[in-house]
Amino acid sequence: MYRQLRKLFIGRPLHNRELTAEHLPKWKALSIFSSDALSSVGYGPEQIAITLAVPGLLLYGYIGYVAAAILVLLAIVTISYVQVSRANPGGGGSYAVAKNNIGEFPALVAAAALFADYTLTVAVSVSSGTEALISAFPDLLHAEVTIDLFVLFTILMLVNLRGVRESSNVFVFPTYFFVISMFILILTGAYQAFTGTAPVIPAESTTKQPFDWLVIVLLLRAFASGCSSMTGVEAISNGVPMFKQPQAENAIKTTFLMAGMLAVMLAGTTFLILHNHILPQENVTMLSRLAEETFGRGWMYYFLQLATMLVLYLAANTSYNGLPLLLSILARDGYMPRYLGIRGERLSFSNGIILLSLSAGALIAGFGGNVEHLISLYAIGVFLSFTIAQTALVIHWRREKGPSWKLRAIINACGAVITGIVVLIIAISKFFLGAWIVLLFIPAMIYIFKAIKQHYTDMAEQLHLSFAEWEALQQGPPGKNIIVVPVSSPTSVVVQTMRYAHSISMNVIALHVTTDRELGRKVEEKWKIWDPGVRLITVYSPYRLVIQPVIHFIEKLQKNKAPEDFITVLIPEFETRKWWHRFLHNQTGLILRTLLILKEDVVVATIPYHLKR
Amino acid sequence: MYRQLRKLFIGRPLHNRELTAEHLPKWKALSIFSSDALSSVGYGPEQIAITLAVPGLLLYGYIGYVAAAILVLLAIVTISYVQVSRANPGGGGSYAVAKNNIGEFPALVAAAALFADYTLTVAVSVSSGTEALISAFPDLLHAEVTIDLFVLFTILMLVNLRGVRESSNVFVFPTYFFVISMFILILTGAYQAFTGTAPVIPAESTTKQPFDWLVIVLLLRAFASGCSSMTGVEAISNGVPMFKQPQAENAIKTTFLMAGMLAVMLAGTTFLILHNHILPQENVTMLSRLAEETFGRGWMYYFLQLATMLVLYLAANTSYNGLPLLLSILARDGYMPRYLGIRGERLSFSNGIILLSLSAGALIAGFGGNVEHLISLYAIGVFLSFTIAQTALVIHWRREKGPSWKLRAIINACGAVITGIVVLIIAISKFFLGAWIVLLFIPAMIYIFKAIKQHYTDMAEQLHLSFAEWEALQQGPPGKNIIVVPVSSPTSVVVQTMRYAHSISMNVIALHVTTDRELGRKVEEKWKIWDPGVRLITVYSPYRLVIQPVIHFIEKLQKNKAPEDFITVLIPEFETRKWWHRFLHNQTGLILRTLLILKEDVVVATIPYHLKR
Repeated sequence: MYRQLRKLFIGRPLHNRELTAEHLPKWKALSIFSSDALSSVGYGPEQIAITLAVPGLLLYGYIGYVAAAILVLLAIVTISYVQVSRANPGGGGSYAVAKNNIGEFPALVAAAALFADYTLTVAVSVSSGTEALISAFPDLLHAEVTIDLFVLFTILMLVNLRGVRESSNVFVFPTYFFVISMFILILTGAYQAFTGTAPVIPAESTTKQPFDWLVIVLLLRAFASGCSSMTGVEAISNGVPMFKQPQAENAIKTTFLMAGMLAVMLAGTTFLILHNHILPQENVTMLSRLAEETFGRGWMYYFLQLATMLVLYLAANTSYNGLPLLLSILARDGYMPRYLGIRGERLSFSNGIILLSLSAGALIAGFGGNVEHLISLYAIGVFLSFTIAQTALVIHWRREKGPSWKLRAIINACGAVITGIVVLIIAISKFFLGAWIVLLFIPAMIYIFKAIKQHYTDMAEQLHLSFAEWEALQQGPPGKNIIVVPVSSPTSVVVQTMRYAHSISMNVIALHVTTDRELGRKVEEKWKIWDPGVRLITVYSPYRLVIQPVIHFIEKLQKNKAPEDFITVLIPEFETRKWWHRFLHNQTGLILRTLLILKEDVVVATIPYHLKR
Repeated sequence: MYRQLRKLFIGRPLHNRELTAEHLPKWKALSIFSSDALSSVGYGPEQIAITLAVPGLLLYGYIGYVAAAILVLLAIVTISYVQVSRANPGGGGSYAVAKNNIGEFPALVAAAALFADYTLTVAVSVSSGTEALISAFPDLLHAEVTIDLFVLFTILMLVNLRGVRESSNVFVFPTYFFVISMFILILTGAYQAFTGTAPVIPAESTTKQPFDWLVIVLLLRAFASGCSSMTGVEAISNGVPMFKQPQAENAIKTTFLMAGMLAVMLAGTTFLILHNHILPQENVTMLSRLAEETFGRGWMYYFLQLATMLVLYLAANTSYNGLPLLLSILARDGYMPRYLGIRGERLSFSNGIILLSLSAGALIAGFGGNVEHLISLYAIGVFLSFTIAQTALVIHWRREKGPSWKLRAIINACGAVITGIVVLIIAISKFFLGAWIVLLFIPAMIYIFKAIKQHYTDMAEQLHLSFAEWEALQQGPPGKNIIVVPVSSPTSVVVQTMRYAHSISMNVIALHVTTDRELGRKVEEKWKIWDPGVRLITVYSPYRLVIQPVIHFIEKLQKNKAPEDFITVLIPEFETRKWWHRFLHNQTGLILRTLLILKEDVVVATIPYHLKR
């Protein structure tokens, strides 16, 4: 049953040799790697507007300036990341680059930041995608979190556990649909604006507030929010090995193309939002309002909303390519539990995929699918890992000393400084709005990484044996084995268990715990008559505890045994024919086993007794 | 930690000899045993009114007649139950009486009905108690289910796990407070009615609908709902052994006193509801409305509401005296899992108490604390067990043939017939309103009882050995023991496990599963050099499964072994120093153990390896 369901949903197991590498043409790579970045248009400009559309304060006119600053930053980040593609760091992104060039600590900072980002990308993209859907179909509003979790666990998680090829065409269309419909939206909107068929911005809303500290704080905060539009720019540089030859050249061209498209869409959307004077509103995205103003609720509107939804869900999927791989690298380096590094039946890193789904699901459920709160946590980690990657590259270029290395180093140094400043801006301006969570999360994760590494190192040291030690241990004195069998009255289970006990040792003790003196005496008498050739010890338990007396007995034995001796406790376990019969037997054996396993040199053996009916 | 918390909440363990019996004076017994019956006034009359206050149909005036019919029924049931007290059946109630006098099937019907009733008593009483509280403090409305569950799990369950003495004065006051304030309410209300200070019923509301089938159905349904007022009348007869000498006499006097008080309260409340023309209303109980009309929102009003709340919670507590005891008797008879029959550390039937709390909690949560829906399920089981108990008593008297046994038998026969008719009325008139659930539940429970009994009987037969069989088995051929040790590369864990393996058998196989041919070869070479004197078998698993190959290997061994041989699989288990380190090791051992235990003659032994750091 379980096996068949599993096969239906996850597919047949794949053989080791089915792990292959593929090479993508530019047009495919563009859509696959840039869904994360391009889809940010779905929420980025809105984040700026939400911060600036403060009731009573007329800062709305500043939206354009903030957007302009973000475009400049985008240019800088793009140029820096072109360098990353050139250095071709392979998988692992900032973590790998930092580990190879700077050292453990910045690498772990990057890993923690990436962990937070990938998880937040999934949570933010899925919930934004659902918001695009709900904007078009408001009746679905009450089901928001349900839809989020459905998409997360039933589509993203299962599809990724199956291990879909990144090159699948399924991933190509949504991005292009989205880009094309965004361009149509921007062109139509611009035409309407310049031919005067659209409403003009009311004069008072562009009035600017006198410039003071409050305004500065709000502007910085808006800038910080808007930076979320830039997440995903690094995706191409992580995917260089998947491009066709010449890989670096192709990757760089694609990066520029992507950045250009993103810039046009950001600029266009911001212009139209300002021109139509769209204010943020609950449960309807600004992009939906904009599309409604421009197209009316026609088929073009619904097409754009569905394309937005799909590209956002697809953006969530990019994290599934990134985080499980990063976790497997961390696991191989000993910073994460080993099993995150094992490929599952379908060759995907199943445990990492499940971990990502659970973390993102917890975030979505915890915040009730409310994107703004999640975005507050978002941008800081992205820029932190940008900064670390750039810094690492400066060192990389200096080491390699290739052609025009100084220019490259300077470009990355500038990138590092500027993205570093952005990190500070976000951390300070958004501190009380959730950035503090990330600023606590990163050191906590680093602590965890190190503690895990410590444990694995300790364990390896304890398990390691030199050949000499091995030889010495082999020649130690052979231990005795004292067998303890908890029994009730003599039944066929006892016979079975005693037979086994005799097959492994001459040293067998039967232990009977009774809560009733009378009954205990009867069992003793029967035992004497039936005589299985084993000493019976009866313990009276007036407080009706059954497990405690057994533990005490074992502890007494432990004190008296030689260090090389073992104590083996044999616990009979009924295997019932029907699953529910299991509930008719108490779980004393299980509890006993769990407690005894904590004792040194005590082996617990379960003797199955199969009930035929 | 766990131990200390447990001691704080549950108390120190109690010794077997601390199980004592107590004898109660009448005034104490009255309040302790009758909280269930008397508190029904809190919801009984309201149930009649809800059914009859149908908008558009003027049946309100019939309320009085229905109440009168219920008073007559109360008299009959009371007289019948006086007989039960006289028969003094001890614990177990209808189940025990039916089992001793009629047979297995009616006894199981009674047990199933009692199971449903006790659970519903808890659910209905707790949620009615909370409704009394909410009527007084409407701000608490949104927290209704939370309060219900808090009272259920934090007060009722914990208090009963501690095993409070039934004689505690805590249980005496609420009942008397409630009775006294109800009498004050009725007297004040009656005074106001007859001196004309209270409003008079508007003429049209007492107008009666022409009598037709629809009216009859609604009246029967109202009667059926009102019968819920009579639940708990049987409590005294179950508690006869706790009365002072002469036990039966005292119990009978108390029963009459209780029935009298209940009758006065029912009649008085119904009169006042009719006179003040109180209509059912959501979120405010009728009793609260009545008290408000009579006293205004003064301290007397709040006192009555709190007394109502307390007596209802106390009524829920009576189920905690009844059901765990009944379950323990059923468990001893083999109809319920054995562990329900074991007294816990505090001498209470802990497992039964937890089962009752969970069932009632599920009902409350499932119905959102909505009492009416629960009451629909309620009355039918009560009257079913009444009927069975009466029938059983007819047979009891005929067997015993004591003084005036014929009179006694006739009284119980009448009681049986009338309560049997009531069962039919409720089952038919309430069928679509939830009675069908109970009518499905009872046969389902009987099926379960019988299936459990069957399993225990089968098991006993399989476990049972005659002395001859025992002797024969003792002299069977001693089996060989083949030891299988799954290993990775030679570490100190492997040394420890091999030492144990050698201590129990000469027949040891080391099994190495590799997902990488290269690595597998290296382990084989190292094994050859280090040579622990044990054959190593390497299995290559190209689909990266680790557990499946081990299972296959064991299955092959199973086919080739002699029937008396055992296979023992040794699984090393790391005991980590810190609890969270456990998550850094995968649970392959646990899964392997769970799967292997299903195989015949395969013993799984866990070898603990204690990590020092």
